[in-house]
Amino acid sequence: MVGERLGGLDTAFLQIENENAHMHIGVVLTFAGEAPRYDDLIEVFERRLHLVPRYRQRLLAPPLPLDRPRWVDDPHFNLRFHVRHTGLPAPGSEEQLKELAARILGQRLDRERPLWEFWLVEGLEGNRFAVIAKTHHAVVDGVSGVDVVTLLLDATPEPSPTPPPPPWLPRPLPSRAELLVESLAGPLRTPLELAKVAQRSLAHPEEVVSDLRRGIGGALEFARAAFLRGGPRTPYNGKIGPHRRFDWVRFSLADLRAIKARLGGTVNDVVLACVAGALHHHLLVRGERVEGVELKTLVPVSVRADVERGALGNRVSLMIATLPVWCADPATRFAIVRDQMAALKESGQAVGAKVLTELGDFAPPTILAQASRLFATQRVFNLVVTNVPGPQFPLYMLGRRLIDPFPVVPLAPDQTLGVALMSYDGRINFGLIGDYDRMWDLRTLARCVRRSMAELAEAAGIELEEPSPYPRPEWLAEGGEGAEAKTGSEGRGAARGTSDGIG
Amino acid sequence: MVGERLGGLDTAFLQIENENAHMHIGVVLTFAGEAPRYDDLIEVFERRLHLVPRYRQRLLAPPLPLDRPRWVDDPHFNLRFHVRHTGLPAPGSEEQLKELAARILGQRLDRERPLWEFWLVEGLEGNRFAVIAKTHHAVVDGVSGVDVVTLLLDATPEPSPTPPPPPWLPRPLPSRAELLVESLAGPLRTPLELAKVAQRSLAHPEEVVSDLRRGIGGALEFARAAFLRGGPRTPYNGKIGPHRRFDWVRFSLADLRAIKARLGGTVNDVVLACVAGALHHHLLVRGERVEGVELKTLVPVSVRADVERGALGNRVSLMIATLPVWCADPATRFAIVRDQMAALKESGQAVGAKVLTELGDFAPPTILAQASRLFATQRVFNLVVTNVPGPQFPLYMLGRRLIDPFPVVPLAPDQTLGVALMSYDGRINFGLIGDYDRMWDLRTLARCVRRSMAELAEAAGIELEEPSPYPRPEWLAEGGEGAEAKTGSEGRGAARGTSDGIG
Repeated sequence: MVGERLGGLDTAFLQIENENAHMHIGVVLTFAGEAPRYDDLIEVFERRLHLVPRYRQRLLAPPLPLDRPRWVDDPHFNLRFHVRHTGLPAPGSEEQLKELAARILGQRLDRERPLWEFWLVEGLEGNRFAVIAKTHHAVVDGVSGVDVVTLLLDATPEPSPTPPPPPWLPRPLPSRAELLVESLAGPLRTPLELAKVAQRSLAHPEEVVSDLRRGIGGALEFARAAFLRGGPRTPYNGKIGPHRRFDWVRFSLADLRAIKARLGGTVNDVVLACVAGALHHHLLVRGERVEGVELKTLVPVSVRADVERGALGNRVSLMIATLPVWCADPATRFAIVRDQMAALKESGQAVGAKVLTELGDFAPPTILAQASRLFATQRVFNLVVTNVPGPQFPLYMLGRRLIDPFPVVPLAPDQTLGVALMSYDGRINFGLIGDYDRMWDLRTLARCVRRSMAELAEAAGIELEEPSPYPRPEWLAEGGEGAEAKTGSEGRGAARGTSDGIG
Repeated sequence: MVGERLGGLDTAFLQIENENAHMHIGVVLTFAGEAPRYDDLIEVFERRLHLVPRYRQRLLAPPLPLDRPRWVDDPHFNLRFHVRHTGLPAPGSEEQLKELAARILGQRLDRERPLWEFWLVEGLEGNRFAVIAKTHHAVVDGVSGVDVVTLLLDATPEPSPTPPPPPWLPRPLPSRAELLVESLAGPLRTPLELAKVAQRSLAHPEEVVSDLRRGIGGALEFARAAFLRGGPRTPYNGKIGPHRRFDWVRFSLADLRAIKARLGGTVNDVVLACVAGALHHHLLVRGERVEGVELKTLVPVSVRADVERGALGNRVSLMIATLPVWCADPATRFAIVRDQMAALKESGQAVGAKVLTELGDFAPPTILAQASRLFATQRVFNLVVTNVPGPQFPLYMLGRRLIDPFPVVPLAPDQTLGVALMSYDGRINFGLIGDYDRMWDLRTLARCVRRSMAELAEAAGIELEEPSPYPRPEWLAEGGEGAEAKTGSEGRGAARGTSDGIG
């Protein structure tokens, strides 16, 4: 085989991308202690990189327009190009780290190289350092993204000794003739039924797209019919530029669990209700109308089974929820979200979407381009809120403890705001990304998130405690926040989350 | 008038630009002492920015294809987007500063905004900090580039008090109708003869291009006929990517003056002979042939009169010299370059090219695109070497003394290497920019530059002294290197330039 064909949904992510909407995901990580030496970091990469071959591969455009790009070894691979070393100016505040992250996230990855960057950032105040990792969505989705960062992370302060890696010899780039033969032979290896679809699509692509819309896309059509109420246009959709702002908010996972236990529902319901309330407050701060505002929100759910973790690529299921941004009452807001999510799960909408993404692996790119443009241009959804589960125990990189992960989703061409969450070791963190101009007040939006969560906590009779950004002393490390049961505010400190609301 | 039309050569720079060849120039500056506070820097910008209105203006595409883009006030101008704050990781070496500069220089400026960035860089070792400035070539050429950096620079450690700036109210963006009227009326305001050319070009652009080639372009044709010897292809031309490497070398201006006095010629002859020798050594180090290698080298010369300094824009004259890279003997190398440059000046080639760029101000963009593509695609030249004269006295930014400027030229689409020089306060510095992949050994090339200059010095009976990268103590500041006469090696220190050659 001449290189591995790109998966269907992965191809879609390449096709949505333009010079302003960059389809990379990312994560900002803060660590306790002195930054490791750059050369030591390089050495760890050299020992472990063979475990994710995709990270030494680049895309090769297909010789035929209906075929997909494929992954080939990059003969010019240079680890020091991808792993970068930088520092913050004094005083090394989190605001300065956010600015650096926003700048890095505002730059599109070069398609002529393996599609990732890893930045080691020195000089974060409070005896910390940071990492900013950036990977194209075509390489990994949010869940396998954790797997890749995990490549450098250990479950113990002492990294387990790694055997020396096997020698890496890049396979030479295939010739054009080889590619052409491969491209022509390709569809014959897919299951018979799908091969027929593919062959028909070569003759009548528009017909197949229509089939796809009617049949497999049915669940999506249902979602549109059910929720497309034509509410007022909000600042969260519009033309974006290439530049970004980035911000974050930390919560204790125990707090969110206590809220969902009191109010009845899931942690994800708490998250979505919190976002609905945050946007409610944000619109009011901006002096915009909230009456009737509902946001169709894409909630990607990973359908990757654990056994699949070795093979990268996208296996996501999509659900479209409607956030009641109009709603002023936190308890009502939560109830609406919870009941809706329960109904969606019963309706099988998620299953329909799952079928769509799995079929994507077999459909030629012209069909996928149509399907993905359905999302991108017809604005089936206004916002993405994704929640990536992480491990509930501490991780270490070269012996330094990971304090906080802050995840990043890409912005679609018509979206000015993206919301990602990641849970880890007893905390659950929001990563907020916004267009530089349209979301000029992203910092205010972060305060609205705190305020909204505090309202939910109040409705549940809980007091929020914002996790510390600093390393915990050793005597606190055993049985940390994540392990504690929390059912009320007894014995807790001041409700910092509340006092940090909009003043 | 609805915004100011872009100049002719400036339009050409926009048209040459593609996603890999970025047409910004730049400069890396090192300063003595603690970095100023970011907010203090912003304040100085706010007080002085009205002196260069172009820096708050953006380009607006023309409504008619034959018209030029124009400069309009940016209603969303945000100073803190353009002035940025960052730091180096430990130990803050010059190598790390070069890497940061290369990364910043490898990013294309956003055409939707004013076309400049100014980075304040903390953490340079030796009690220094740095500035990386980046401006699109359409805004300034090398000479007015100095003027713009000078905006922040003072001739005394105590900045002269600046009066508060006049309030800035951006003019609203013109409507499409206004633009159209303006665009149609435009050519009538140019001198009658040129208006006729412009009007004819609307009907028969290819005819006018042909005229331009035959008539005004005559001097260039002469240059091509004289020097196009079809020598071997070198690593300095080829397809480039978006990423860059950056390096630099310092020399004492007194050393170069002593060399030219001994060998007979100009400082520019010394520079060009040094580059020819550096490439000779570099090819040998790479194991490539040097036999018969000559590089047609574009040497831009500013034709801006001092009275014009207020108005930004390109007024450059172009000379095309042929570097004898094949030549192994430094004295012969110098003699060839010197005699050739003298002959070129007599032939009036520079005057012909000057006429070309001045006419550029009146010709519609389709003609200019042809003319500039002549340069870019037919490879009339292989290399750019530009030498920007700076002030011979110390400058200060917020009271901190400027130690070293290192200039940056853009790479044309087919060029892997660019060489820029800037003289300042007794020193003359090379800034070397290269494509990240093609010029992977740019650091070696920098050593070849040192080696080549040392050979010229030896031929002239001079010992080179490399200027210190660190602040000079106060007792040395009076009557520095630049003021000293230098005719030999008597009383000088060890020849560091020589010992740092290729080992």
